[in-house]
Amino acid sequence: RTLRIGLIPGDGIGREVIPAGRRLLESLPTSLGLKFSFVDLDAGFDTFKKTGNALPDKTVDILKKECDGALFGAVSSPSTKVAGYSSPIVALRKRLDLYANVRPVKTTAGGSATGSPIDLVIVRENTEDLYVKEEKTTEGPEGKVAEAIKRISERASSRIATMAGEIALRRQKIRQVSPGTSHLSKPMVTITHKSNVLSQTDGLFRETARKALANPKYSTVEVEEQIVDSMVYKLFRQPGYYDVIVAPNLYGDILSDGAAALVGSLGLVPSANVGDGFAIGEPCHGSAPDIEGKGIANPIATLRSVALMLEFLGEEPAAAKIYAAVDANLDEGKYLSPDLGGKATTQEVLEDVLKRL
Amino acid sequence: RTLRIGLIPGDGIGREVIPAGRRLLESLPTSLGLKFSFVDLDAGFDTFKKTGNALPDKTVDILKKECDGALFGAVSSPSTKVAGYSSPIVALRKRLDLYANVRPVKTTAGGSATGSPIDLVIVRENTEDLYVKEEKTTEGPEGKVAEAIKRISERASSRIATMAGEIALRRQKIRQVSPGTSHLSKPMVTITHKSNVLSQTDGLFRETARKALANPKYSTVEVEEQIVDSMVYKLFRQPGYYDVIVAPNLYGDILSDGAAALVGSLGLVPSANVGDGFAIGEPCHGSAPDIEGKGIANPIATLRSVALMLEFLGEEPAAAKIYAAVDANLDEGKYLSPDLGGKATTQEVLEDVLKRL
Ligand SMILES: CC(C)[C@H](C(=O)O)[C@@H](O)C(=O)O
Ligand SMILES: CC(C)[C@H](C(=O)O)[C@@H](O)C(=O)O
Repeated sequence: RTLRIGLIPGDGIGREVIPAGRRLLESLPTSLGLKFSFVDLDAGFDTFKKTGNALPDKTVDILKKECDGALFGAVSSPSTKVAGYSSPIVALRKRLDLYANVRPVKTTAGGSATGSPIDLVIVRENTEDLYVKEEKTTEGPEGKVAEAIKRISERASSRIATMAGEIALRRQKIRQVSPGTSHLSKPMVTITHKSNVLSQTDGLFRETARKALANPKYSTVEVEEQIVDSMVYKLFRQPGYYDVIVAPNLYGDILSDGAAALVGSLGLVPSANVGDGFAIGEPCHGSAPDIEGKGIANPIATLRSVALMLEFLGEEPAAAKIYAAVDANLDEGKYLSPDLGGKATTQEVLEDVLKRL
Repeated sequence: RTLRIGLIPGDGIGREVIPAGRRLLESLPTSLGLKFSFVDLDAGFDTFKKTGNALPDKTVDILKKECDGALFGAVSSPSTKVAGYSSPIVALRKRLDLYANVRPVKTTAGGSATGSPIDLVIVRENTEDLYVKEEKTTEGPEGKVAEAIKRISERASSRIATMAGEIALRRQKIRQVSPGTSHLSKPMVTITHKSNVLSQTDGLFRETARKALANPKYSTVEVEEQIVDSMVYKLFRQPGYYDVIVAPNLYGDILSDGAAALVGSLGLVPSANVGDGFAIGEPCHGSAPDIEGKGIANPIATLRSVALMLEFLGEEPAAAKIYAAVDANLDEGKYLSPDLGGKATTQEVLEDVLKRL
């Protein structure tokens, strides 16, 4: 099988980590029976500065028509308001209907900031909530008043909860075939919301998620819920307790950064933007202007995002190989980038992982 | 000076900690020249079940007409949607225009979960954002769609940023008169927002806060900003760096639970809902149905909330006395409630603190 992969480095260290992702795909053992072809695509703040458009139509078209999946690096946010600029990754998620943002956060033997093992995944709704970006500003007697719409639909809530249920079952299956890889024993989904304040929007998310997960398919999955503020508290206090956390877009955004902090560095945390039959791997970190161009960006988040993308394209054996190689690199701890307290360059970390494939 | 204080225990352990708050006020040294009178007021889910109204008008009237300040315990959230029920504390904040929710989070010598000293305060806007609770639901071809309004005004953003600036200056003054009580050296305000997605609403918050803090009054205050997801990440990774964090309502809600996790227990973290000339002290924890009625709720969050209320009523010497007594209790560590790994009852912790006044 040949997979065509769009490469969208974006800005800053995106240009350093996406090439590492490509190298990884090119280096996968031929025994997996996978071939890859690549197409370079533009998006980002630099693209905006050059063309006036952060996400050229051509990028979207090629992804839709030619590609099986893609890798997205990072985008810089302008430090002051820039008229007409709007985040290309948010737009891409919507235009390709990549309705789930899946963010696994897992400690390796090397351990976590809190000491206890963590093996959770945040399943974030990726198309609506405040990210519909419908805003307006009026001038009142006491100055400006701006309003934004938070939209929660039954349809989007149901499909994201279903995705969470599927992921919980899949993770359980993986635990059963490779015992000892996780401390978790049973599948669980935690629904996160703030329905004590937002009874209609978050109330709809909560009810719909409950309904979707009440499907007999998920009868082995324990379902519980947590108000978002208390979810953040619990995430810090007992992260090892959680398996799958499903959340509306904005809470998912916040929770995944919180979870990343627990494993030591954003440079470790991958994500995949997943739709029906398409997935974009995307490291959770940003464009990191402070280390841009130094060649020391941690490529692990991207390498894991490559695996995650492959997982959602149905290539689980290839994904498993990558996860194992990355874990081995981290567990040995000889080639670690500066964000993890090491001295290795992006290239050195990459080579070490490739060696272990 | 005699202060009249409304006592609103609310539900659950609110009924156990608010009496401790009253005892504390009654036990303050007479040398402070303060007297207190009290009025018991109803609010909460139990009040709703009895009267159909979680926040009786009488409670609001008496607070407005008779009281100088109040203490609020906690409210239970119904576990399923209950028609007509709506959080009384959210309503109270709006009806009394208590526009700032101030939540200091500080480690004592006893230390924090992360080991490094923390001395920050979250200044949360308390009247708008998604808490305006303007929601509607429509039935579309693909099921229900619910929308909520997130409202950000220049007026509210400006006054909360000004409050943050004032608090930064006040904290700096306290550090100067009592050196050694904090590791911080200069006043700083961090503005939190998500203007990379919400350019109008959070953009307005950001710009307005910047403008308010550019007032020469705050020329000694360093002003910086942090996108909310990255704020949560940084809060976990380097909490000791922060001084004053100012945020719109919902982010402030989430951040304060996150910060509470860093100091070991929600049972330690106080808050004050502050308006012009009025303040309601409120422990950050909830009604805690799991330990209700056992007499083991940690009263510290309430005792510190009493101090915070007094601070905002202009009674700083009384507040300082309480903070010192609480810190001494925690530092000795002999009478700690179960949430802190101790065995002391609410009553025993209270008596130990009173002894140290
Ligand atoms: C850059 C930003 C628009 C984006 C988001 O909020 O989704 C980022 O934080 C992420 O999590 O991918
Ligand atoms: C109980 C709830 C409505 C409240 C809030 O969201 O403000 C609580 O979480 C708080 O922080 O005081």
